[in-house]
Amino acid sequence: MISITRSFSIRTNGKGLSEITSHVEGIVRESGVNEGTATVFVRHTSASLVIFENADPTAARDLEMFFERMVPESGEGYFHTLEGPDDMTSHIRMVLTRSSEVIPIVDSRLGLGSWQGIFLFEHRRAPHSRSILVNVTGVP
Amino acid sequence: MISITRSFSIRTNGKGLSEITSHVEGIVRESGVNEGTATVFVRHTSASLVIFENADPTAARDLEMFFERMVPESGEGYFHTLEGPDDMTSHIRMVLTRSSEVIPIVDSRLGLGSWQGIFLFEHRRAPHSRSILVNVTGVP
Amino acid sequence: MISITRSFSIRTNGKGLSEITSHVEGIVRESGVNEGTATVFVRHTSASLVIFENADPTAARDLEMFFERMVPESGEGYFHTLEGPDDMTSHIRMVLTRSSEVIPIVDSRLGLGSWQGIFLFEHRRAPHSRSILVNVTGVP
Repeated sequence: MISITRSFSIRTNGKGLSEITSHVEGIVRESGVNEGTATVFVRHTSASLVIFENADPTAARDLEMFFERMVPESGEGYFHTLEGPDDMTSHIRMVLTRSSEVIPIVDSRLGLGSWQGIFLFEHRRAPHSRSILVNVTGVP
Repeated sequence: MISITRSFSIRTNGKGLSEITSHVEGIVRESGVNEGTATVFVRHTSASLVIFENADPTAARDLEMFFERMVPESGEGYFHTLEGPDDMTSHIRMVLTRSSEVIPIVDSRLGLGSWQGIFLFEHRRAPHSRSILVNVTGVP
Repeated sequence: MISITRSFSIRTNGKGLSEITSHVEGIVRESGVNEGTATVFVRHTSASLVIFENADPTAARDLEMFFERMVPESGEGYFHTLEGPDDMTSHIRMVLTRSSEVIPIVDSRLGLGSWQGIFLFEHRRAPHSRSILVNVTGVP
Protein backbone atom coordinates (compact mmCIF):
# COMPACT_ATOMS: atom_id res chain seq x y z
CA MET A 1 0.00 0.00 0.00
CA ILE A 2 1.21 3.45 -0.91
CA SER A 3 0.20 6.91 0.33
CA ILE A 4 2.20 9.98 -0.72
CA THR A 5 1.42 13.69 -0.46
CA ARG A 6 3.08 16.20 -2.79
CA SER A 7 2.60 19.94 -3.38
CA PHE A 8 3.00 22.28 -6.32
CA SER A 9 2.28 25.94 -7.02
CA ILE A 10 0.83 27.69 -10.02
CA ARG A 11 0.76 31.35 -10.94
CA THR A 12 -2.65 32.72 -11.95
CA ASN A 13 -3.34 35.79 -14.09
CA GLY A 14 -6.32 36.99 -12.08
CA LYS A 15 -9.87 35.65 -12.32
CA GLY A 16 -10.43 32.52 -14.36
CA LEU A 17 -9.64 28.84 -14.85
CA SER A 18 -6.14 27.29 -15.09
CA GLU A 19 -5.89 23.61 -15.99
CA ILE A 20 -3.78 21.51 -13.59
CA THR A 21 -4.58 18.00 -14.88
CA SER A 22 -1.05 17.26 -16.07
CA HIS A 23 0.45 18.25 -12.69
CA VAL A 24 -1.86 15.77 -10.94
CA GLU A 25 -1.19 13.05 -13.54
CA GLY A 26 2.55 13.47 -12.98
CA ILE A 27 2.17 12.84 -9.25
CA VAL A 28 -0.02 9.76 -9.91
CA ARG A 29 2.71 8.38 -12.21
CA GLU A 30 5.45 9.10 -9.66
CA SER A 31 3.46 7.33 -6.89
CA GLY A 32 3.41 3.94 -8.60
CA VAL A 33 -0.24 3.46 -7.55
CA ASN A 34 -2.22 1.24 -9.96
CA GLU A 35 -5.62 1.30 -8.22
CA GLY A 36 -6.61 3.92 -5.64
CA THR A 37 -7.49 7.62 -5.41
CA ALA A 38 -5.91 11.01 -6.10
CA THR A 39 -7.05 13.80 -3.74
CA VAL A 40 -6.51 17.36 -4.97
CA PHE A 41 -6.75 20.18 -2.41
CA VAL A 42 -6.34 23.94 -2.79
CA ARG A 43 -4.83 25.66 0.27
CA HIS A 44 -6.62 29.01 -0.14
CA THR A 45 -9.97 30.63 0.63
CA SER A 46 -10.18 32.83 -2.46
CA ALA A 47 -9.42 30.20 -5.11
CA SER A 48 -11.08 26.83 -5.63
CA LEU A 49 -11.23 23.67 -7.75
CA VAL A 50 -13.62 22.51 -10.44
CA ILE A 51 -13.70 19.59 -12.81
CA PHE A 52 -14.81 21.13 -16.09
CA GLU A 53 -15.09 20.85 -19.86
CA ASN A 54 -11.54 21.09 -21.25
CA ALA A 55 -12.14 21.30 -25.00
CA ASP A 56 -13.95 24.57 -25.81
CA PRO A 57 -12.55 27.80 -24.31
CA THR A 58 -15.93 29.57 -24.67
CA ALA A 59 -17.28 27.27 -21.93
CA ALA A 60 -14.76 28.71 -19.44
CA ARG A 61 -15.66 32.25 -20.53
CA ASP A 62 -19.38 31.58 -20.03
CA LEU A 63 -18.69 30.09 -16.59
CA GLU A 64 -16.75 33.17 -15.50
CA MET A 65 -19.56 35.45 -16.76
CA PHE A 66 -22.13 33.40 -14.87
CA PHE A 67 -20.18 33.82 -11.60
CA GLU A 68 -19.89 37.58 -12.20
CA ARG A 69 -23.68 37.76 -12.38
CA MET A 70 -24.43 35.30 -9.56
CA VAL A 71 -21.89 36.79 -7.10
CA PRO A 72 -21.56 40.42 -8.21
CA GLU A 73 -18.85 42.65 -6.75
CA SER A 74 -21.06 45.73 -6.39
CA GLY A 75 -24.25 46.57 -4.61
CA GLU A 76 -24.37 43.72 -2.12
CA GLY A 77 -23.36 45.58 1.04
CA TYR A 78 -20.64 43.22 2.27
CA PHE A 79 -18.81 43.93 5.56
CA HIS A 80 -15.69 41.85 4.78
CA THR A 81 -14.06 44.21 2.23
CA LEU A 82 -10.62 44.91 3.70
CA GLU A 83 -8.84 43.69 0.56
CA GLY A 84 -11.27 45.32 -1.88
CA PRO A 85 -14.55 44.53 -3.65
CA ASP A 86 -13.27 41.12 -4.84
CA ASP A 87 -12.46 39.96 -1.27
CA MET A 88 -15.81 38.66 0.01
CA THR A 89 -16.98 37.61 -3.46
CA SER A 90 -13.88 35.37 -3.70
CA HIS A 91 -14.82 33.57 -0.48
CA ILE A 92 -18.40 33.06 -1.69
CA ARG A 93 -17.32 31.78 -5.12
CA MET A 94 -14.98 29.36 -3.37
CA VAL A 95 -17.81 28.08 -1.15
CA LEU A 96 -20.01 27.50 -4.24
CA THR A 97 -17.32 25.40 -5.95
CA ARG A 98 -14.80 23.01 -4.31
CA SER A 99 -11.75 22.98 -2.04
CA SER A 100 -11.12 19.25 -2.56
CA GLU A 101 -11.75 16.84 -5.41
CA VAL A 102 -11.06 13.09 -5.37
CA ILE A 103 -10.52 11.10 -8.57
CA PRO A 104 -10.32 7.29 -8.63
CA ILE A 105 -7.21 5.80 -10.25
CA VAL A 106 -7.71 3.00 -12.79
CA ASP A 107 -4.78 1.16 -14.43
CA SER A 108 -2.28 3.70 -13.01
CA ARG A 109 -4.16 6.68 -14.52
CA LEU A 110 -6.72 9.26 -13.38
CA GLY A 111 -10.20 7.94 -14.21
CA LEU A 112 -11.34 11.18 -15.85
CA GLY A 113 -13.94 11.15 -18.64
CA SER A 114 -13.02 12.26 -22.19
CA TRP A 115 -13.95 15.93 -21.67
CA GLN A 116 -12.98 16.36 -18.03
CA GLY A 117 -10.05 18.44 -16.86
CA ILE A 118 -9.07 19.50 -13.32
CA PHE A 119 -8.96 23.30 -13.01
CA LEU A 120 -7.91 25.84 -10.43
CA PHE A 121 -10.52 28.62 -10.30
CA GLU A 122 -8.93 31.94 -9.31
CA HIS A 123 -11.44 34.39 -7.82
CA ARG A 124 -9.21 37.44 -7.19
CA ARG A 125 -8.57 40.14 -9.80
CA ALA A 126 -4.82 40.23 -9.22
CA PRO A 127 -2.38 37.45 -10.21
CA HIS A 128 -1.58 35.09 -7.32
CA SER A 129 0.66 32.11 -6.60
CA ARG A 130 -1.59 29.24 -5.49
CA SER A 131 -0.47 26.18 -3.54
CA ILE A 132 -2.08 22.80 -4.24
CA LEU A 133 -1.67 19.51 -2.38
CA VAL A 134 -2.11 16.11 -4.03
CA ASN A 135 -2.33 12.87 -2.09
CA VAL A 136 -2.21 9.55 -3.93
CA THR A 137 -3.26 6.46 -1.96
CA GLY A 138 -3.71 2.91 -3.24
CA VAL A 139 -2.11 -0.36 -4.27
CA PRO A 140 0.80 -0.77 -6.75
CA MET B 1 -5.22 -3.07 3.08
CA ILE B 2 -7.62 -3.10 0.16
CA SER B 3 -8.14 -0.63 -2.69
CA ILE B 4 -10.44 -1.51 -5.59
CA THR B 5 -11.96 0.63 -8.35
CA ARG B 6 -15.15 -0.46 -10.14
CA SER B 7 -17.41 1.23 -12.70
CA PHE B 8 -21.10 1.06 -13.56
CA SER B 9 -23.44 2.92 -15.90
CA ILE B 10 -26.95 4.19 -15.46
CA ARG B 11 -29.47 5.41 -18.01
CA THR B 12 -31.10 8.76 -17.20
CA ASN B 13 -34.47 10.01 -18.50
CA GLY B 14 -33.32 13.61 -18.98
CA LYS B 15 -33.03 16.26 -16.26
CA GLY B 16 -33.39 15.13 -12.67
CA LEU B 17 -32.09 12.93 -9.87
CA SER B 18 -31.47 9.16 -10.04
CA GLU B 19 -30.55 7.36 -6.82
CA ILE B 20 -27.39 5.23 -7.04
CA THR B 21 -26.91 4.35 -3.34
CA SER B 22 -27.53 0.61 -3.81
CA HIS B 23 -24.93 0.41 -6.62
CA VAL B 24 -22.31 1.95 -4.32
CA GLU B 25 -23.32 -0.24 -1.38
CA GLY B 26 -22.91 -3.33 -3.57
CA ILE B 27 -19.32 -2.37 -4.42
CA VAL B 28 -18.54 -1.70 -0.73
CA ARG B 29 -19.85 -5.18 0.14
CA GLU B 30 -17.85 -6.80 -2.68
CA SER B 31 -14.64 -5.05 -1.52
CA GLY B 32 -14.56 -6.66 1.92
CA VAL B 33 -13.55 -3.31 3.47
CA ASN B 34 -14.70 -2.91 7.08
CA GLU B 35 -13.30 0.56 7.83
CA GLY B 36 -12.27 3.03 5.09
CA THR B 37 -13.81 5.25 2.41
CA ALA B 38 -15.94 4.93 -0.71
CA THR B 39 -15.19 7.53 -3.41
CA VAL B 40 -17.92 8.10 -6.01
CA PHE B 41 -16.98 9.95 -9.20
CA VAL B 42 -19.03 10.89 -12.26
CA ARG B 43 -17.09 10.88 -15.55
CA HIS B 44 -19.07 13.65 -17.28
CA THR B 45 -19.23 17.44 -17.45
CA SER B 46 -23.01 17.74 -17.87
CA ALA B 47 -24.10 15.47 -15.00
CA SER B 48 -23.04 15.59 -11.35
CA LEU B 49 -23.45 14.06 -7.89
CA VAL B 50 -25.38 15.18 -4.83
CA ILE B 51 -26.12 13.62 -1.48
CA PHE B 52 -29.77 14.44 -0.91
CA GLU B 53 -33.00 13.71 0.96
CA ASN B 54 -34.21 10.30 -0.23
CA ALA B 55 -37.65 10.05 1.40
CA ASP B 56 -39.94 12.71 -0.11
CA PRO B 57 -40.06 13.00 -3.94
CA THR B 58 -41.32 16.61 -3.73
CA ALA B 59 -37.85 17.60 -2.41
CA ALA B 60 -36.25 16.44 -5.67
CA ARG B 61 -38.90 18.33 -7.69
CA ASP B 62 -38.26 21.53 -5.73
CA LEU B 63 -34.49 21.15 -6.22
CA GLU B 64 -34.90 20.80 -9.98
CA MET B 65 -37.17 23.89 -10.08
CA PHE B 66 -34.62 25.88 -8.09
CA PHE B 67 -31.86 25.03 -10.59
CA GLU B 68 -34.15 26.02 -13.51
CA ARG B 69 -34.51 29.46 -11.91
CA MET B 70 -30.89 29.86 -10.76
CA VAL B 71 -29.33 28.69 -14.05
CA PRO B 72 -32.00 29.49 -16.67
CA GLU B 73 -31.65 28.22 -20.23
CA SER B 74 -32.82 31.43 -21.88
CA GLY B 75 -31.75 35.06 -21.88
CA GLU B 76 -28.21 34.63 -20.56
CA GLY B 77 -26.26 35.13 -23.80
CA TYR B 78 -23.99 32.08 -23.57
CA PHE B 79 -21.36 31.45 -26.26
CA HIS B 80 -20.96 27.70 -25.65
CA THR B 81 -24.27 26.53 -27.21
CA LEU B 82 -23.19 24.04 -29.88
CA GLU B 83 -25.33 21.26 -28.40
CA GLY B 84 -28.35 23.50 -27.67
CA PRO B 85 -29.65 25.76 -24.86
CA ASP B 86 -29.07 23.05 -22.21
CA ASP B 87 -25.35 22.71 -23.09
CA MET B 88 -23.72 25.55 -21.10
CA THR B 89 -26.33 25.41 -18.33
CA SER B 90 -25.40 21.74 -17.79
CA HIS B 91 -21.74 22.64 -17.24
CA ILE B 92 -22.69 25.40 -14.78
CA ARG B 93 -25.10 23.17 -12.82
CA MET B 94 -22.36 20.56 -12.61
CA VAL B 95 -19.87 23.13 -11.25
CA LEU B 96 -22.41 24.19 -8.57
CA THR B 97 -22.87 20.60 -7.36
CA ARG B 98 -20.23 17.80 -7.20
CA SER B 99 -18.11 15.59 -9.43
CA SER B 100 -16.82 13.51 -6.49
CA GLU B 101 -18.26 12.52 -3.13
CA VAL B 102 -16.43 10.52 -0.43
CA ILE B 103 -18.33 8.55 2.23
CA PRO B 104 -16.60 6.94 5.23
CA ILE B 105 -17.24 3.22 5.73
CA VAL B 106 -18.20 2.04 9.22
CA ASP B 107 -18.70 -1.65 10.09
CA SER B 108 -18.55 -2.63 6.38
CA ARG B 109 -21.33 -0.17 5.43
CA LEU B 110 -21.60 3.36 4.00
CA GLY B 111 -21.83 5.81 6.93
CA LEU B 112 -24.84 7.66 5.46
CA GLY B 113 -27.37 9.34 7.76
CA SER B 114 -31.00 8.13 7.89
CA TRP B 115 -32.28 10.44 5.16
CA GLN B 116 -29.22 10.55 2.91
CA GLY B 117 -29.06 8.96 -0.52
CA ILE B 118 -26.38 9.29 -3.22
CA PHE B 119 -27.86 10.67 -6.46
CA LEU B 120 -26.72 11.27 -10.00
CA PHE B 121 -28.00 14.68 -11.15
CA GLU B 122 -28.62 14.71 -14.92
CA HIS B 123 -28.50 18.23 -16.40
CA ARG B 124 -29.30 17.50 -20.07
CA ARG B 125 -32.85 17.32 -21.45
CA ALA B 126 -32.25 14.12 -23.40
CA PRO B 127 -31.75 10.67 -21.81
CA HIS B 128 -28.08 9.73 -21.44
CA SER B 129 -25.99 6.78 -20.33
CA ARG B 130 -23.73 7.98 -17.49
CA SER B 131 -20.55 6.27 -16.31
CA ILE B 132 -19.65 6.31 -12.61
CA LEU B 133 -16.45 5.14 -10.90
CA VAL B 134 -16.36 3.89 -7.31
CA ASN B 135 -13.13 3.33 -5.39
CA VAL B 136 -13.21 1.56 -2.03
CA THR B 137 -10.07 1.81 0.11
CA GLY B 138 -9.58 0.60 3.68
CA VAL B 139 -8.91 -2.29 6.02
CA PRO B 140 -10.82 -5.63 6.10
CA MET C 1 -1.26 1.17 6.58
CA ILE C 2 -3.93 2.65 8.83
CA SER C 3 -7.60 3.40 8.22
CA ILE C 4 -9.83 4.47 11.10
CA THR C 5 -13.31 6.00 11.15
CA ARG C 6 -14.50 8.05 14.16
CA SER C 7 -17.62 10.14 14.82
CA PHE C 8 -18.44 13.18 16.91
CA SER C 9 -21.44 15.45 17.40
CA ILE C 10 -21.76 19.18 17.73
CA ARG C 11 -24.67 21.33 18.87
CA THR C 12 -25.55 24.22 16.57
CA ASN C 13 -27.41 27.41 17.55
CA GLY C 14 -29.47 27.63 14.36
CA LYS C 15 -28.27 28.96 11.01
CA GLY C 16 -24.58 29.70 10.63
CA LEU C 17 -21.03 28.35 10.69
CA SER C 18 -19.42 26.34 13.52
CA GLU C 19 -15.70 25.58 13.25
CA ILE C 20 -14.80 21.89 13.67
CA THR C 21 -11.10 21.98 12.68
CA SER C 22 -9.80 21.03 16.13
CA HIS C 23 -12.12 17.98 16.31
CA VAL C 24 -10.73 16.73 12.98
CA GLU C 25 -7.12 17.50 14.01
CA GLY C 26 -7.62 15.46 17.20
CA ILE C 27 -8.70 12.40 15.19
CA VAL C 28 -5.72 12.80 12.82
CA ARG C 29 -3.38 12.87 15.85
CA GLU C 30 -5.05 9.82 17.41
CA SER C 31 -4.73 7.87 14.13
CA GLY C 32 -0.94 7.98 14.00
CA VAL C 33 -1.07 8.66 10.23
CA ASN C 34 1.90 10.67 8.95
CA GLU C 35 0.98 10.89 5.26
CA GLY C 36 -2.54 10.25 3.92
CA THR C 37 -6.00 11.85 3.90
CA ALA C 38 -8.69 12.94 6.35
CA THR C 39 -12.25 12.61 5.03
CA VAL C 40 -14.91 14.68 6.82
CA PHE C 41 -18.57 13.79 6.21
CA VAL C 42 -21.79 15.30 7.61
CA ARG C 43 -24.61 12.78 8.08
CA HIS C 44 -27.50 15.20 7.43
CA THR C 45 -29.41 16.73 4.51
CA SER C 46 -30.04 20.14 6.10
CA ALA C 47 -26.49 20.93 7.24
CA SER C 48 -23.29 20.85 5.20
CA LEU C 49 -19.53 21.45 5.22
CA VAL C 50 -17.40 24.28 3.92
CA ILE C 51 -13.73 25.15 4.14
CA PHE C 52 -13.74 28.87 4.84
CA GLU C 53 -11.85 31.92 6.07
CA ASN C 54 -11.36 31.47 9.82
CA ALA C 55 -9.92 34.85 10.86
CA ASP C 56 -12.57 37.55 10.34
CA PRO C 57 -16.09 36.89 11.72
CA THR C 58 -17.63 39.42 9.28
CA ALA C 59 -16.79 36.99 6.44
CA ALA C 60 -19.10 34.35 7.98
CA ARG C 61 -21.84 36.96 8.42
CA ASP C 62 -21.57 38.04 4.78
CA LEU C 63 -21.69 34.41 3.65
CA GLU C 64 -24.88 33.78 5.62
CA MET C 65 -26.48 36.94 4.18
CA PHE C 66 -25.54 35.86 0.67
CA PHE C 67 -27.27 32.49 1.15
CA GLU C 68 -30.40 34.23 2.52
CA ARG C 69 -30.59 36.20 -0.73
CA MET C 70 -29.63 33.37 -3.09
CA VAL C 71 -31.95 30.77 -1.50
CA PRO C 72 -34.74 32.87 0.09
CA GLU C 73 -37.27 31.26 2.40
CA SER C 74 -40.26 33.15 1.01
CA GLY C 75 -41.93 33.51 -2.36
CA GLU C 76 -40.43 30.49 -4.11
CA GLY C 77 -43.47 28.18 -4.08
CA TYR C 78 -41.77 25.05 -2.71
CA PHE C 79 -43.80 21.82 -2.26
CA HIS C 80 -41.49 20.22 0.35
CA THR C 81 -42.45 22.40 3.35
CA LEU C 82 -43.61 19.89 5.97
CA GLU C 83 -41.08 21.14 8.53
CA GLY C 84 -41.56 24.84 7.75
CA PRO C 85 -40.18 27.49 5.38
CA ASP C 86 -36.55 26.56 6.22
CA ASP C 87 -37.05 22.89 5.23
CA MET C 88 -36.54 22.94 1.45
CA THR C 89 -34.12 25.88 1.56
CA SER C 90 -31.91 23.79 3.89
CA HIS C 91 -31.72 20.96 1.36
CA ILE C 92 -30.86 23.41 -1.45
CA ARG C 93 -28.17 25.19 0.60
CA MET C 94 -26.68 21.80 1.43
CA VAL C 95 -26.57 20.84 -2.27
CA LEU C 96 -24.79 24.14 -3.10
CA THR C 97 -22.06 23.49 -0.51
CA ARG C 98 -20.55 20.10 0.51
CA SER C 99 -21.41 16.85 2.28
CA SER C 100 -17.81 15.60 2.19
CA GLU C 101 -14.43 17.28 2.25
CA VAL C 102 -11.04 15.53 1.97
CA ILE C 103 -7.84 17.11 3.29
CA PRO C 104 -4.39 15.63 2.62
CA ILE C 105 -2.23 14.94 5.68
CA VAL C 106 1.38 16.16 5.63
CA ASP C 107 3.83 15.44 8.47
CA SER C 108 1.03 14.09 10.70
CA ARG C 109 -1.07 17.28 10.31
CA LEU C 110 -3.96 18.53 8.18
CA GLY C 111 -2.53 20.31 5.12
CA LEU C 112 -4.78 23.37 5.54
CA GLY C 113 -3.60 26.80 4.39
CA SER C 114 -3.03 29.63 6.87
CA TRP C 115 -6.59 31.01 6.67
CA GLN C 116 -8.53 27.78 6.15
CA GLY C 117 -10.81 26.27 8.75
CA ILE C 118 -13.28 23.38 8.42
CA PHE C 119 -16.83 24.48 9.26
CA LEU C 120 -20.20 22.87 9.73
CA PHE C 121 -22.85 25.02 8.01
CA GLU C 122 -26.22 24.73 9.78
CA HIS C 123 -29.15 25.60 7.51
CA ARG C 124 -32.11 25.20 9.93
CA ARG C 125 -33.36 28.01 12.17
CA ALA C 126 -33.57 25.83 15.28
CA PRO C 127 -30.55 24.46 17.18
CA HIS C 128 -29.67 20.88 16.18
CA SER C 129 -27.23 18.16 17.20
CA ARG C 130 -25.21 17.24 14.09
CA SER C 131 -23.27 14.01 13.60
CA ILE C 132 -19.97 14.07 11.69
CA LEU C 133 -17.82 11.15 10.53
CA VAL C 134 -14.04 11.41 10.04
CA ASN C 135 -11.99 8.75 8.32
CA VAL C 136 -8.20 8.93 8.40
CA THR C 137 -6.31 6.69 5.97
CA GLY C 138 -2.59 6.60 5.28
CA VAL C 139 0.86 5.46 6.35
CA PRO C 140 2.43 5.94 9.85
